[in-house]
Amino acid sequence: MTSPLLMAMPGNEKLAAELAAMLDYELGRVEIRQFPDGETYLRLMTSPEQRAVAIMCTLDHPDEKILPLLFCAATARELNASRVGLVAPYLAYMRQDRRFKPGEAVTSRQVAHLVSEAFDWLVTLDPHLHRYGTLGDIYSIPTRIVHAAPMVSLWIRTNVSNPLIIGPDSESEQWVAAVAKDADAPYCVLEKTRHGDRSVEIKIADLVRWQGRTPVLVDDIISTGQTMLEAIRLLRSQGWAAPVSIAVHGLFAEQADRFLAQAGAQVITSNTIVHATNRIDLTASLARAIGEIATP
Amino acid sequence: MTSPLLMAMPGNEKLAAELAAMLDYELGRVEIRQFPDGETYLRLMTSPEQRAVAIMCTLDHPDEKILPLLFCAATARELNASRVGLVAPYLAYMRQDRRFKPGEAVTSRQVAHLVSEAFDWLVTLDPHLHRYGTLGDIYSIPTRIVHAAPMVSLWIRTNVSNPLIIGPDSESEQWVAAVAKDADAPYCVLEKTRHGDRSVEIKIADLVRWQGRTPVLVDDIISTGQTMLEAIRLLRSQGWAAPVSIAVHGLFAEQADRFLAQAGAQVITSNTIVHATNRIDLTASLARAIGEIATP
Repeated sequence: MTSPLLMAMPGNEKLAAELAAMLDYELGRVEIRQFPDGETYLRLMTSPEQRAVAIMCTLDHPDEKILPLLFCAATARELNASRVGLVAPYLAYMRQDRRFKPGEAVTSRQVAHLVSEAFDWLVTLDPHLHRYGTLGDIYSIPTRIVHAAPMVSLWIRTNVSNPLIIGPDSESEQWVAAVAKDADAPYCVLEKTRHGDRSVEIKIADLVRWQGRTPVLVDDIISTGQTMLEAIRLLRSQGWAAPVSIAVHGLFAEQADRFLAQAGAQVITSNTIVHATNRIDLTASLARAIGEIATP
Repeated sequence: MTSPLLMAMPGNEKLAAELAAMLDYELGRVEIRQFPDGETYLRLMTSPEQRAVAIMCTLDHPDEKILPLLFCAATARELNASRVGLVAPYLAYMRQDRRFKPGEAVTSRQVAHLVSEAFDWLVTLDPHLHRYGTLGDIYSIPTRIVHAAPMVSLWIRTNVSNPLIIGPDSESEQWVAAVAKDADAPYCVLEKTRHGDRSVEIKIADLVRWQGRTPVLVDDIISTGQTMLEAIRLLRSQGWAAPVSIAVHGLFAEQADRFLAQAGAQVITSNTIVHATNRIDLTASLARAIGEIATP
């Protein structure tokens, strides 16, 4: 029997190559280019016929990525792939998870529908499950979630002496507590009030009793980085050293990485979205999940 | 009974307003913006409940437009629109109409599938039907095609004295002949050989017998404009005056409009894609087709 095939959408080549090596899958080739008028041309250079196929595409900046991704999946199915799965280390469109105002698009459901139609399974990493209990609430295909917490804890244990783990808000408390426990460190969470896409207000409990520890801010996503920036300012105004700022998914919208560096933070992310701050390697965890779901 | 609703996706506001006025439809409001991380936020500001809805979105540069368009359609359906149709004056992804090489995505079928799932009907204008006989070969919903030829002919008759209509290739001969007949002018077609996305070679029959006429190049689409540019060069090298260059759909990829102007062409397009060269107004023809299909 031929081995399963892993195909990387543009920008995912490095992680896909590492995953394929770990899983002993063939790394397939996809040719993608734009016609002069902006339409996408896509060609599978490796035949998916009668093979289990995993397509890898992390979904930051999803609007330009989803159509080519759907083309890739549909073409693999037309060419008789036995199964076609999606590996999306970062899964987009999880935040609009209900109609907050009349007439709003519940894009999380709509994207989940498109993905569920196009693919047979989904592997992702710490999706932003806020009001949804599980991905099964919106995805109709089998899904597997990889958790970053153990590797975040390991990185902290290995790289930070005497850490104090600080979470962004009460909703994240469970996750922050887990990270802290495995990192063998105390933790606290901030009180966050969001006023808009780019505006947050935070408060912090009295941290005097943790004096002498290194503050480690942890969050699932850094988008505009406003939460991290506010937290850093608050900590520094109380006389703390520049904190370590860890996020699983570093989106870094609107030059957030530059502003965080200017604020003195040491920024650390996982390798779900390629960035110079990638230090936490989740390849092995992803490989395990793919192996379990791709060839049942 | 409430009137049907016409919703414009961004960039389609002007034509949508004119269509709504002509059809006596309400012009609905859609709020669309990007979150800082690049995801789309969409909200229908006018309720589609129990109403026939037409969503207008011309599909040049389709990759960034299709996902928000699908969000809009899905939201209208969720909010109980009675029917949801698509008005796409320019319909993209019609050119990859078979697997020319093994492994290629047949994107025309894949886009047709997405649109057919999301909408109840489609109105478009002179789609690039090459190897397909009708839109019904790939679209599973009712479609209506508006033909630009009569208005192209009218424009030529009104604005060009003593025209000679010149088509780009033998495949366009039927269309060119129809334009010429209504414009009351003779016609000929070029011999075109395409070497790549941006490279074409053309030949022209002996035009001496048409001396004294104004050459009018007509085509369905100007993308990179290479065909038009080659034709203009050829005509000028034979001592002809700068031609009028007419296209139904002016995509103008890679600054084609600038190069055509530099070559001395008077470029004329229809209003399916907003551009300074829009002179041929197809609003009334579109309105008629929408009225027929939207409320059967």
